[in-house]
Amino acid sequence: MKVYRKEQFEIPEHKHYFCGHSLGPISKSAKLALLNGAHQWETEQVCAWEQSQWIDLPEICGQKIAPLIGASHADVIVCDNTTLNLFKVLLCALSINPKRNIILTQIDNFPTDNYIAQSVANLKDVTYIALPKEDILTALNSDVAVLLLTHVDYLSANKWDMAHINQMAKAKGIVTIWDLSHSVGVMNLHCAQNEVDFAVGCTYKYLNGGPGAPSFIYVNPKHQDHLPLQGWMGHATPFAFLQTFHPAIGVKRFLSGTPSILSMKTLLGALEHFDNVDLPCLEKKSQALTTYLIEKCAQFLPAFKCLSPQDPLQRGSHVAFYHPDAQDLVKQFIKQGIIVDYRNPNVIRFGISPLYLNKADIDNALAVIQKCLQSAKHSVTGIT
Amino acid sequence: MKVYRKEQFEIPEHKHYFCGHSLGPISKSAKLALLNGAHQWETEQVCAWEQSQWIDLPEICGQKIAPLIGASHADVIVCDNTTLNLFKVLLCALSINPKRNIILTQIDNFPTDNYIAQSVANLKDVTYIALPKEDILTALNSDVAVLLLTHVDYLSANKWDMAHINQMAKAKGIVTIWDLSHSVGVMNLHCAQNEVDFAVGCTYKYLNGGPGAPSFIYVNPKHQDHLPLQGWMGHATPFAFLQTFHPAIGVKRFLSGTPSILSMKTLLGALEHFDNVDLPCLEKKSQALTTYLIEKCAQFLPAFKCLSPQDPLQRGSHVAFYHPDAQDLVKQFIKQGIIVDYRNPNVIRFGISPLYLNKADIDNALAVIQKCLQSAKHSVTGIT
Repeated sequence: MKVYRKEQFEIPEHKHYFCGHSLGPISKSAKLALLNGAHQWETEQVCAWEQSQWIDLPEICGQKIAPLIGASHADVIVCDNTTLNLFKVLLCALSINPKRNIILTQIDNFPTDNYIAQSVANLKDVTYIALPKEDILTALNSDVAVLLLTHVDYLSANKWDMAHINQMAKAKGIVTIWDLSHSVGVMNLHCAQNEVDFAVGCTYKYLNGGPGAPSFIYVNPKHQDHLPLQGWMGHATPFAFLQTFHPAIGVKRFLSGTPSILSMKTLLGALEHFDNVDLPCLEKKSQALTTYLIEKCAQFLPAFKCLSPQDPLQRGSHVAFYHPDAQDLVKQFIKQGIIVDYRNPNVIRFGISPLYLNKADIDNALAVIQKCLQSAKHSVTGIT
Repeated sequence: MKVYRKEQFEIPEHKHYFCGHSLGPISKSAKLALLNGAHQWETEQVCAWEQSQWIDLPEICGQKIAPLIGASHADVIVCDNTTLNLFKVLLCALSINPKRNIILTQIDNFPTDNYIAQSVANLKDVTYIALPKEDILTALNSDVAVLLLTHVDYLSANKWDMAHINQMAKAKGIVTIWDLSHSVGVMNLHCAQNEVDFAVGCTYKYLNGGPGAPSFIYVNPKHQDHLPLQGWMGHATPFAFLQTFHPAIGVKRFLSGTPSILSMKTLLGALEHFDNVDLPCLEKKSQALTTYLIEKCAQFLPAFKCLSPQDPLQRGSHVAFYHPDAQDLVKQFIKQGIIVDYRNPNVIRFGISPLYLNKADIDNALAVIQKCLQSAKHSVTGIT
């Protein structure tokens, strides 16, 4: 089955959407699922929790995401947001390595990962160490309890070799946590095969789950008997309303309070687009498209300095460019229907989802961008 | 403006809905707001975060809830779920009283409150004590750091005298946390006036925010310089993507990760119904209706043994009855369009929201229930 399926997404005709790394677009099935959730609320009201399986949505969504990260169906659950899920798995990871006292991470992670890791370090009285990427490998030693890494860097798209670094960490007895927010939905991931201990990730980027859609947690089966936080949805029998907490078997114990059903329904609809996706093919398309974008920019937009790796194997599915007027330019591009985003300092990001973007979209976008740049140049020199 | 406004809710004609204490029904404005959220996602995509103020929704929703709990606009924020919000405020409350080592709570709270309080106690190495209601007052002493109470009991509807117990706790230097899940939206609350330190609560019950709608947090202004957990939405400048965490001023620092926008939009729509509600009048209606239900049941359904306080001042807005066949009966009632709920052991609950229920609804429901009971009786004795 072909990867490109733009007709299934509701993207306004005059727009080229390059922000799937930030918020994926709404799809027909996501919209339908959202309306279906509202309809269930209206017609079944509180009875929908059981009748329409609302109560099972965290597991059902987890089962859909599992193959996308190379995990077994039973090892993924969807709930809460990535910051809080990271908090839960960090606590759990530390309890696996109680005699060690360091959380090691990369300094230029997406900031919330490091903020919450510092919270955990403060709470558990362990040391938080954040290093540049190039210093991580040499810092792996037997004092490190947990290594927390983001698989694809949110800014540069720089990608870790997950198999290799996991092997290095395991050799030192270190528990690994991966943030897959910028990876899932555009590449072929192998959590089980690569012996990942824990992973978390967003569902509102390349999975197109909707703004603030709930996050996922992967827990390696060997750690599923550990306990993160105690909330009623993680209880073995939540509707027995017992005063004593008995954790559910498996990843379900990572649930906390009542899940957000309308968001979860929408996500479930969005995930339908991945039902028959060939992941190696998706990854190849992503690499081909990002390479095409980089090459075309080098050729036609020399003022755009590429900040992302040239080697597609070291890159995620977005591309970052430096331009001294990036902030103003992004505003102009958006006005012209080319939706990219700006990040401090002077960075323009293009997110590439092969589900709804192809080479023609890139060509069209770059043509518009060229015009914008020419017009900006003329306007500076006073010619127009 | 009248309190009763059933025409604004989408309740199927053949149903009488008595489960507002569990999940409020969808209203016209909630549905409209949800559709509007989906439309913004489709047409504005990622730009809606700024253009359509998605980023401000936690504060905007908080400002709408504030008057309903007797708080200033700036002191309430909406995010995450009640379990996790309770976790955050418990951590914060303990940091205010660092030399004390007890979290005191009521043993028959809604279970998730006690599960998460135990998690906090374990993490912070303090003692968790859960006592029956009648033993709480005498247990207030200078070792207690935090008193966590649910204002209205989820099962019996028993209501605490918030002003009185806060005064008693304050006299001993104890920080108070109130769970207002079963109170907000049906009574006149006075968080500021009663010197509440922290409060949390659901928005999917009497506020009709939708299944798993996000929860609210009230923080007394004097505690807003304390820090709960560090997440990027609680940063002073989240979009500067700084490596160092600088907390936002005020309650905003209680945010964690990316908020669930579709749920938050729906909640905002649902809250429109409270814009002009006279809260003392709403409370009186609630008391009058629950009293009416109790009296009519005593008269016409003697097999229903009321478990809720007879005095409306000591009661929330639901009523619990004991019946030996409660579980089977509830199934029958629901089949007949009388939506009530069952709780272990043998308890039937009727939730009363004066926004969409009146005496006629109660009369109609009790007539159907009487018929069900008669038919059940005949069926047992083999007459039918």
